[in-house]
Amino acid sequence: MRHVPHIFLGGPWESSELALSDEQGRHLSRVLRLADGAVVSYTDGAGARGKGELTGGLVRRGEETRDPRPTPEVTVAVAPPSKPNRARFLVEKLAELGVDRLIWLRTRLGEGRPPKPTKAEAWARSALEQSRGAWVLRIEGPMTIGDLPTSSTLWVAERETNPPPSVAEGGILVIGPEAGLAEGEAPQRANRIGLGTRVLRVETAALVGATILLDRSGRLNR
Amino acid sequence: MRHVPHIFLGGPWESSELALSDEQGRHLSRVLRLADGAVVSYTDGAGARGKGELTGGLVRRGEETRDPRPTPEVTVAVAPPSKPNRARFLVEKLAELGVDRLIWLRTRLGEGRPPKPTKAEAWARSALEQSRGAWVLRIEGPMTIGDLPTSSTLWVAERETNPPPSVAEGGILVIGPEAGLAEGEAPQRANRIGLGTRVLRVETAALVGATILLDRSGRLNR
Repeated sequence: MRHVPHIFLGGPWESSELALSDEQGRHLSRVLRLADGAVVSYTDGAGARGKGELTGGLVRRGEETRDPRPTPEVTVAVAPPSKPNRARFLVEKLAELGVDRLIWLRTRLGEGRPPKPTKAEAWARSALEQSRGAWVLRIEGPMTIGDLPTSSTLWVAERETNPPPSVAEGGILVIGPEAGLAEGEAPQRANRIGLGTRVLRVETAALVGATILLDRSGRLNR
Repeated sequence: MRHVPHIFLGGPWESSELALSDEQGRHLSRVLRLADGAVVSYTDGAGARGKGELTGGLVRRGEETRDPRPTPEVTVAVAPPSKPNRARFLVEKLAELGVDRLIWLRTRLGEGRPPKPTKAEAWARSALEQSRGAWVLRIEGPMTIGDLPTSSTLWVAERETNPPPSVAEGGILVIGPEAGLAEGEAPQRANRIGLGTRVLRVETAALVGATILLDRSGRLNR
């Protein structure tokens, strides 16, 4: 079944046939050269997935299942990289890997600006399709570190630290800007997490830190 | 010392003043606006690092130290991504993270071609400067999986597997092309390693897999 395309179709699904976006329609017909009757896999990005078939530019729904929400939840809160292609890479890779949520941070020393939400959401949806997932990366912010939800464990990436032995409860990983966090910008309650001895770019630190949190909390197990 | 630039100056260092490339010279004088007497940090990419000063477009050598070669060694052997910007990202991120060696794989179903060695080496050196390391990513290949050195543990990334509990000995991580490895292409002796449930692009799998190997073998500890 490798070549069955996997597509994002935003919910709620209220009828038995679902509309494709213009871009999806073009991609399926012109790039993949699929005709009516071709089997496609689809998801609403909120756990539902189905297998249906193309019909007159729509998807006729077939057998559907639900993927449970992955636990523990992993969020990356990051100062936007200053170059747009690095911001795109960041969104795309976190979405591909299955991180639950990305929060753009407003920091004292950060110089980058978050990409437009419509753009960032389109990158995340396309990475969800690519990686065949059922839960799409949610994108929030910008906000300051002080505004982050206090109900989650906070991990702040720092160079002078080792990776934590266990992160069983997941949490929010904070990645500061390349100039670093200002004195006192990280709240007292935050835990420190090390990502090795190298100085990493923002987007690299985000992806490496997310991998460590997902791996050490068991989220990369099948 | 955050703003002391870190530069790659290929060895062997035979005199007390070392030449900068044209590009390094331009970057230091025009972008960073450094004048003679400015302090710079430098490395040969093979463990040596020093702190010297700029003088007439050269670096006058100062105090020098050696970083021991990191152990265990971690190599990523990967089928080249088909898009050049993804290949660049791959080289840059592995070099930034401190992976020891990248080997381009020639696989039966892979469609990408390795970037030119001069280009790939320049990306790796610039990522070394950026990340302030002393050991540069070595780049080899292309070769087939059968030609990989048999003295190292072989890890083959596969979807139907979990991450291994320990990878204390490091080794070579094999990432096949997006179409997968062909039947029998991975040698019998290879160990399987899982990178989660998503279908990852080649460059994402390489970076995520390298992070897991580095983390689980203790290479991200200080």
